[in-house]
Amino acid sequence: MERFLSRHEKHLPNHFYNLKADLETLPPPPLSPVTHGPLDPQELLPIFPAGLVAHEVSRARSVPIPPAVLAIMAQYRPTPLVYASELRRRLGTPAHIFYKYEGVSPSGSHKSNTALVQAHLAAAEGVETLVTETGAGQWGSALALAGQALGLRIHVYMVGSSFHQKPERRALMEMAGAEVTASPSGRTRAGRACLGEGPDHPGSLGIAIAEAVEEAVGTSGAKYALGSVLDSVLLHQSVIGLEARSQLAEVGASPDLVVGCVGGGSNFAGLAFPLLHDPLGRQAKCEFLAVEPAACPTLTRGRLGYDHGDSAGLTPLLFMHSLGKGFVPPPLHAGGLRYHGMSPLVSHLVAQGRVKAVALEQDRVFAAARLFLSCEGILPAPESAHAIAAVIDEALRCRETGEARTILLGLSGHGLLDLASYRASGGAGS
Amino acid sequence: MERFLSRHEKHLPNHFYNLKADLETLPPPPLSPVTHGPLDPQELLPIFPAGLVAHEVSRARSVPIPPAVLAIMAQYRPTPLVYASELRRRLGTPAHIFYKYEGVSPSGSHKSNTALVQAHLAAAEGVETLVTETGAGQWGSALALAGQALGLRIHVYMVGSSFHQKPERRALMEMAGAEVTASPSGRTRAGRACLGEGPDHPGSLGIAIAEAVEEAVGTSGAKYALGSVLDSVLLHQSVIGLEARSQLAEVGASPDLVVGCVGGGSNFAGLAFPLLHDPLGRQAKCEFLAVEPAACPTLTRGRLGYDHGDSAGLTPLLFMHSLGKGFVPPPLHAGGLRYHGMSPLVSHLVAQGRVKAVALEQDRVFAAARLFLSCEGILPAPESAHAIAAVIDEALRCRETGEARTILLGLSGHGLLDLASYRASGGAGS
Repeated sequence: MERFLSRHEKHLPNHFYNLKADLETLPPPPLSPVTHGPLDPQELLPIFPAGLVAHEVSRARSVPIPPAVLAIMAQYRPTPLVYASELRRRLGTPAHIFYKYEGVSPSGSHKSNTALVQAHLAAAEGVETLVTETGAGQWGSALALAGQALGLRIHVYMVGSSFHQKPERRALMEMAGAEVTASPSGRTRAGRACLGEGPDHPGSLGIAIAEAVEEAVGTSGAKYALGSVLDSVLLHQSVIGLEARSQLAEVGASPDLVVGCVGGGSNFAGLAFPLLHDPLGRQAKCEFLAVEPAACPTLTRGRLGYDHGDSAGLTPLLFMHSLGKGFVPPPLHAGGLRYHGMSPLVSHLVAQGRVKAVALEQDRVFAAARLFLSCEGILPAPESAHAIAAVIDEALRCRETGEARTILLGLSGHGLLDLASYRASGGAGS
Repeated sequence: MERFLSRHEKHLPNHFYNLKADLETLPPPPLSPVTHGPLDPQELLPIFPAGLVAHEVSRARSVPIPPAVLAIMAQYRPTPLVYASELRRRLGTPAHIFYKYEGVSPSGSHKSNTALVQAHLAAAEGVETLVTETGAGQWGSALALAGQALGLRIHVYMVGSSFHQKPERRALMEMAGAEVTASPSGRTRAGRACLGEGPDHPGSLGIAIAEAVEEAVGTSGAKYALGSVLDSVLLHQSVIGLEARSQLAEVGASPDLVVGCVGGGSNFAGLAFPLLHDPLGRQAKCEFLAVEPAACPTLTRGRLGYDHGDSAGLTPLLFMHSLGKGFVPPPLHAGGLRYHGMSPLVSHLVAQGRVKAVALEQDRVFAAARLFLSCEGILPAPESAHAIAAVIDEALRCRETGEARTILLGLSGHGLLDLASYRASGGAGS
């Protein structure tokens, strides 16, 4: 097997893939935060650009990628698909491991894919400012860079604990022209309510989302942007799986197992959804594994039901796995993947048994990152390392059973801006 | 003009280009550090792998790229060549600006190109350990990652001031399995001599080189690796200019001015040397500008003559511009480009007037980095930002004169691991 599969431009799709066209049943619909009845898409227009709402509700199997977005994506896409020959050798496994690497994007993760689309859709309808939140900083960086590329102001509410622990991430967003505010802040009702609980509130993604939505809805020319969870965001990320399918087909490979990390679900879905069915819409003979941190076990310990996406209850109620909108992960958890909720589509597939989920401890995850670096020469993001750890488990299981399974691993980003986290955990070595 | 030029694999060369085949006169030869007579290449064999010495002395115009190296390079090469349309628009210049971006390599800079070749040549002849030095950390990171990919132990003497100020760079090298020692150290005679001057010696590249060479020469199974200056390193970096020439030719463009930053000279030479002559060996109608920091003005203030590459005088005497082997740059200088000497080939071209040189102040350089990020969406390494600042000057001059010159800018790496430097200088914004 050649180690590096083709990155020929023919593998870059010109449309997004919409899983909803191929599902027999859909998750229960979003509910209005006001009426608690089914959400009218019109209710989303004060929050999101109209173009994004159209993506959100589309049932079409194929949604065209805007040409202006495609031109920018072509700078870093198709992303590499690599046969992990050295990892395989080191593990002594008969399994075949491929990884799809999104770390070559401008922001170093898959988040750039949807950031570019959202910035384009907003700019195309005259929006001047996108307001968003970020936790570990990958999403905020991606939107800041995309906003700059497409001429939009970006305002990021950054979870307070990260704001103070990750000055480099903040510096990157500010260098890209974004405004960055520690959340909870005194700028919004939602923020002030949290600060009332004590000035040292560490913040959470749910709170930061509440602040961003409140500002977007209350400010002329501003809309809100979300980096995961939404059907539309998963739609944009489908470029990952579409490319992987095309690249694998060229070498005659077909995965038996697809593994990705999950926070809100967009990275996992981006890789997995285009591989759930064959081009005729028939279910693929392939297993799917979503990997989350034990410190934020949304799929494995959360409750499946309606919950808000933000702490204040401003956003629609989504039918999803949730740890509760007030959830704050323990401070020792160093990486991203800290969100209390989950993409309704991913939750739906987990509830149906089509996608399995597992939660892993941070120590094992960071050890996997180190092994991966030593074999493949790429420092993975801590988020992506969750998927690596699960792939290592499966590869070692195959060593016991002798199965030559083909495993496709989603490597969502690099960890060059996470070296402080690796160091703090002792993950940088003795 | 399309913004992103083709990255088709046909632009990746299968050979290196050796400028020495096309020069009418060569620089005065290296001298033996022992006899001070002309250096016998045999004297280099205790220091460098024999394969590298062969590259060093070759006069062939084309030197094949080892297939094992080409396979790894194909993961990130051809690197992007981008038409800087937004920078051009923002500057209001009629000049056409292209940049060749090496930040997509595994280490985030052009240093990976020669690191892969040097690690391969060493491993191929049974070398177990490569010992090297690093200043800002780009070269050490590149060699650590290359060593890991090719199964070599790497030991890096890291200039002491960087060792303490850049824990993330050190963490990356250590995660990649390299051993990292602050220089000056107590492990070598050269290091102990400096420590004798005081325990808080900040170190310098010259001292770190002396320590690395001393260890390599005195250790069985070990050789030394250098990240710039040598003819062989410049040879390896020629892939940059060969690709750029091919990519530009496809769109019918031809540069009037080539601009790159210089520390030891390999980044500049990698881009410029293949463009100095046309395929028939005739001098190209193109100007060349090497940009250095005012804090380390080797080409603009250094003396042209014989000097050692290291502080201790262990290495051969090279005929080059030098600030003196004991030079230590001022601590306020945040980026790389801190070396006292210069590639003899680059020095030769500057002495002949074929290459012009300019030294720029750090404040202007960091402001240029910010403008570039805001236009092009890439955070440049502080080193690369020197070239950007010079290109901006030229583009503004063209605005005055109305000249539509075509400028090719070498963007040697990204600055994601340099955000602390940008922050410290106020470069991350208010």
